[in-house]
Amino acid sequence: MNGAEALMHTARTAGIDVCFANPGTTEMPLVAALDSVPGLRGILGLFEGVCTGAADGYGRMTDRPAMTLLHLGPGFANGIANLHNARRARSPIVNLVGDHTRSHVEFDAPLTSDIVSLARPVSGWVRSNRAADDLAVDFAAAARAALGPPRQVATLIIPADCQWGKADGPAEIRRNAAAPVDTARILAASDELRRAEHPALLLGGTALREPGLRAAARVAAATGARLLSETFPARLERGTGLPRVERLPYFPEQAIEFLASIDAIVLAGAREPVAFFGYPDTASRLAPATAAIASVAERGEDVAVALENLANALDAPPTAPPGADAVLPGAPAAGPLEPQALGALLARSQPAGAIVVDEGATTSLPYTLAADAAPPHTVLGLTGGAIGQALPVAVGAAVACPDRKVIALQADGGGLYTLQALWTLAREGLDVTVLICSNRRYRILQIELARAGIAEPGPNAQSLTDLSRPDIDWAGLGSSLGVPSRRVESVAELARELAPAIAAPGPRLIEMVV
Amino acid sequence: MNGAEALMHTARTAGIDVCFANPGTTEMPLVAALDSVPGLRGILGLFEGVCTGAADGYGRMTDRPAMTLLHLGPGFANGIANLHNARRARSPIVNLVGDHTRSHVEFDAPLTSDIVSLARPVSGWVRSNRAADDLAVDFAAAARAALGPPRQVATLIIPADCQWGKADGPAEIRRNAAAPVDTARILAASDELRRAEHPALLLGGTALREPGLRAAARVAAATGARLLSETFPARLERGTGLPRVERLPYFPEQAIEFLASIDAIVLAGAREPVAFFGYPDTASRLAPATAAIASVAERGEDVAVALENLANALDAPPTAPPGADAVLPGAPAAGPLEPQALGALLARSQPAGAIVVDEGATTSLPYTLAADAAPPHTVLGLTGGAIGQALPVAVGAAVACPDRKVIALQADGGGLYTLQALWTLAREGLDVTVLICSNRRYRILQIELARAGIAEPGPNAQSLTDLSRPDIDWAGLGSSLGVPSRRVESVAELARELAPAIAAPGPRLIEMVV
Repeated sequence: MNGAEALMHTARTAGIDVCFANPGTTEMPLVAALDSVPGLRGILGLFEGVCTGAADGYGRMTDRPAMTLLHLGPGFANGIANLHNARRARSPIVNLVGDHTRSHVEFDAPLTSDIVSLARPVSGWVRSNRAADDLAVDFAAAARAALGPPRQVATLIIPADCQWGKADGPAEIRRNAAAPVDTARILAASDELRRAEHPALLLGGTALREPGLRAAARVAAATGARLLSETFPARLERGTGLPRVERLPYFPEQAIEFLASIDAIVLAGAREPVAFFGYPDTASRLAPATAAIASVAERGEDVAVALENLANALDAPPTAPPGADAVLPGAPAAGPLEPQALGALLARSQPAGAIVVDEGATTSLPYTLAADAAPPHTVLGLTGGAIGQALPVAVGAAVACPDRKVIALQADGGGLYTLQALWTLAREGLDVTVLICSNRRYRILQIELARAGIAEPGPNAQSLTDLSRPDIDWAGLGSSLGVPSRRVESVAELARELAPAIAAPGPRLIEMVV
Repeated sequence: MNGAEALMHTARTAGIDVCFANPGTTEMPLVAALDSVPGLRGILGLFEGVCTGAADGYGRMTDRPAMTLLHLGPGFANGIANLHNARRARSPIVNLVGDHTRSHVEFDAPLTSDIVSLARPVSGWVRSNRAADDLAVDFAAAARAALGPPRQVATLIIPADCQWGKADGPAEIRRNAAAPVDTARILAASDELRRAEHPALLLGGTALREPGLRAAARVAAATGARLLSETFPARLERGTGLPRVERLPYFPEQAIEFLASIDAIVLAGAREPVAFFGYPDTASRLAPATAAIASVAERGEDVAVALENLANALDAPPTAPPGADAVLPGAPAAGPLEPQALGALLARSQPAGAIVVDEGATTSLPYTLAADAAPPHTVLGLTGGAIGQALPVAVGAAVACPDRKVIALQADGGGLYTLQALWTLAREGLDVTVLICSNRRYRILQIELARAGIAEPGPNAQSLTDLSRPDIDWAGLGSSLGVPSRRVESVAELARELAPAIAAPGPRLIEMVV
C-alpha cells in the first residue's frame, strides 16, 4: 500500500466518499488511489473554483467534508475564492494539494510556489506532509480538523513522493468533543432579553436550521424579541410552517435603520452585525451604540442546544407554527421580466424541499421576500461575498442531496467566474435548474458608483461596469457545456419555461434577460 | 485631487496607460479616477485571471507594466495563477488591489482577507498603502519595482478610504540603474567555452530576442557551442533569417539524453536546467554531473549586452543569417487532423510578424518544429506551467501590438480555465486568431499515468483525465462570448478555414478536433 492508498482508505473509514478534483502531474498517485478502495467518487471540475465551491455546498448540506484534489500553488489559488466563502460558511472541507517531490523543491522548478502562504488565509488548519508513512495520520488530523467542532477548511499539502512511497496502512480518525454550552452565557442572555424593551435575536450558522429556528421562535414568543438572520446565511431553512426571520439588509444605512429601535441583541451563531464595506460617514457597526450585546454560544458550541436552553431558561412554551399570514405574491401573466415578477414566479414554482443557491445579487431581493410563503426549502447564501459561488455550490448540494431539486439563482456577472460548473452538472446528470439573472451589467457596482456621488460615470467607469458590447449568450454557453438551455425575455416566456425546466430531471438552464 | 487621481496621474507621467480591470466595491474611486486623466484605457476582464494574464502578455511585448485592478483577497486570488506565470516570465506588472477602509478592517467583514499572504508568492514587491497622501509615492515605488531592472510583479494594496481621501498630487517615478555586466563572468564563460569539447549556450529571458540571438550565434559559430533555449520561453524571436535554437525537451529522460554529450553549459538569462517535475529514479538536474556551468549575466543585468561582450571576448566575427536549409514541411491536403498536419498547416499560414501564444500542450510540438522555417515571428510560452495562460496573454499581446496578428494556440483543457478572455477579445476587437486544440482529454495526465506504470487506469482515473461525456462545443462557447467561431474536424476543413480566419481583422476562433 502506498501513501496515497493509505490516505484514501482512511477517508473511507471516516465516511468520506466524494472528491471534487482538478488534478495535475503531482497528484497522479492520489488520482490512481481513488480506485484502490470501493465507494470513492471522483468528480471532475474543469476549474478549481468549481471543486472548492462544490465541496462547500456538499459540506453545508451534509456536515461532512468532501475532499478536493488540487494542483500545487497556482491550481490551489484558483480555488481560493470559493474556499473563502466556505471559510465564512464554516463548511467542513479537506483540501488535498500535491506538491513537488521533497528532493525537487530546492530546484525551484517552474511550478514551485509557496503553497502554505496561499493556503493560510482560507484554511483553519494547514499541514505539509513530510513522509509517506505519516500520510494516513496527517489525513486523519486534517479530517478531524475539518469535522470539528468547530467545522473548518483543512488543507493538507502532499509531496508526490510521499503519495507513491510505501506506507503501513490507514489511520483512525478521532473526533473532537463538542464544547458544552455555557450556562452562564445562557443566563446572561436571558437577563438581557428580559431587561430589554426592544430585543432581537440575530441568528447565523446552524441556528438557521429547523431546531435552532424553533427554539428561537419560542424565545421570541416569550420575550417579544425580533428574529433576525445574517444577510448571507450559510444555510437557512425557510418556507411555510417554519418560523420566519427578517434578513438583515445589505447596505449599511438600511441596516442601521432596520436595527435603530433595538436595545439588546442576543447573538446565536452570528457575529455582531457589521457593514459589508466601509463608507465615508457611515459606521461599521450597525447596531445602536447603546444596545446591549450578548451571545448564547461561541464557535464550536452547539448553538441549537444553546437556543433551546435559552428558551427553557425563559420558561418559553412551545410555539405553534406560524399561521397562514404569509401568502405567495401573485405573478403577472405578461409584461417585462423585472425582478419582482421573476421572484414571484420562482417562489410559486419551486417544489417542496428545494435547495435554492442564491447568488442573484441585485435581482434576488424580491424573490427572497416572496419565498417566505413558498413550501419548505433551504437557502444557501453568498457567505464570504466572493462572487462565482452559486453554480459550484449547486454542484455540491446536488451531489449531497440527489433526491432534492436544486435551484441556482445566479447573477450573470458572478456566474461568469465559474461557468465551467455547468459542464460538471451535465457530466454528473445533477438535478439542478440554473436560472441566470442576465441584466448585462455589474449592477451593484453601478449602484456603488452612484452612492459615491459619481452621477455621470466617465467612459472607463461605464465600460468597466457594463457586460454588454457584446451581449453574452448564456443559453449558448449552457448548451456548449452540455446543459439544455433556453433564453426568456418576458414574463410570459419565463412562465412557460420555468415549470417544465424544474420538472425535468437533470440539469436545465434558463437565461432570464431582466 | 484624491488619492486615486494622484495615482492615475503618476501612472500617466510614467507612460503607463493600460489597466486590465475586474473591480469591486473597494476599487470604485480607482475606477472613477481612470477617467480623471486623458489617455488611460481601462479594459474589462470578466475573471481576474484574464486581467493578470493580459498584463503578462502586454509586459512581455512592451517591457512596460500594465496595471491590473483587482478586488480584495478573493478577487486577487483568482489572478494568482497567471501572476505565477508572469513572475516566471519576469514580466513587469503593477497590481492595484483595493482593500477595506482602514477603520473597517478590524470588524472582519465577510470579504476581509489576508491579501499580503496571498500576494507574496507571486509578487517580487508588495506594499500596503496606509494614507491617501502616500498613495502617489507608493504607486511610484511599485512602478519602479515593476520596471526594474530586474523587472517583476509589484502589488500595491490600497484601502478604499486612501483612494477617496485628499492627496497633494502625483509623484515622480525614478528608475533603477541597470547593473553593469560583470567582465569577470564574461571571461570565465569564454574560458569554459574554449576549454570544452561539446559546449552549449542555454538562452532564456531576453537573450531569446533578436540582439541576444545574433550575439549568441556569433559565439556558437566561434566555439561550436550548441544554441539551446528554455523549454517554455517567455518571449522567443524565431523564423527565417533568425538564428535557430534547439528547445530543451519537456520530459526529463528526453532532456537528459538531449544534454548527455555536453561538457560545458553557459547560461544566458536562463537558469541551470532542471526537470519540470520530480520522478522516481530520475534526477532533477538535467545536465551531466560532469558538465561545467557558467553564467554570463545575473538577474538585473542586460543579458544581450553580456552575450555581445562574450562574442567580442571570443573574437567571434559577425555571422550570416542562417541559410535556407530550414524548409516548411509540406501539409497534407486531406486526412485526419493530427498534430503533425495541424502544425504544418499553421506554420505555412502564419503571417510575418505574428505573435504566437503557445499553450498547445501535447499538440504543439510538431508545430514548434515546423515553424523554424516560418516567417519571423514571436513565441510566448507557458513560463510557469500554470495552464489557462494563452487566451489572456493573447489579449495583452494584441493590446500591446495592434499592428501584429496574434495567434493563440490553446489546448482545450487549459483554455477552459480562462475562456472568459474570449469576451474581452470581442469587446476590444482584438486581432487574435484563437486555435483550440480539442483532443477532449487531459492528454498530459494520461501520459503521466502511463509513465507512472498505471497501464489500465480505473474508472475514477479515467474520468478525471477525460473531457468528453459531454463533449465541449468550443465553437459554441466562442460564439456565445462574441467571437465568430468555427469547428473543423479534418485537414481539408482546417485548410479551408485557417487562412480566412487569419486574414480577417479582429478575433476569430477555430475549434480543431484533433
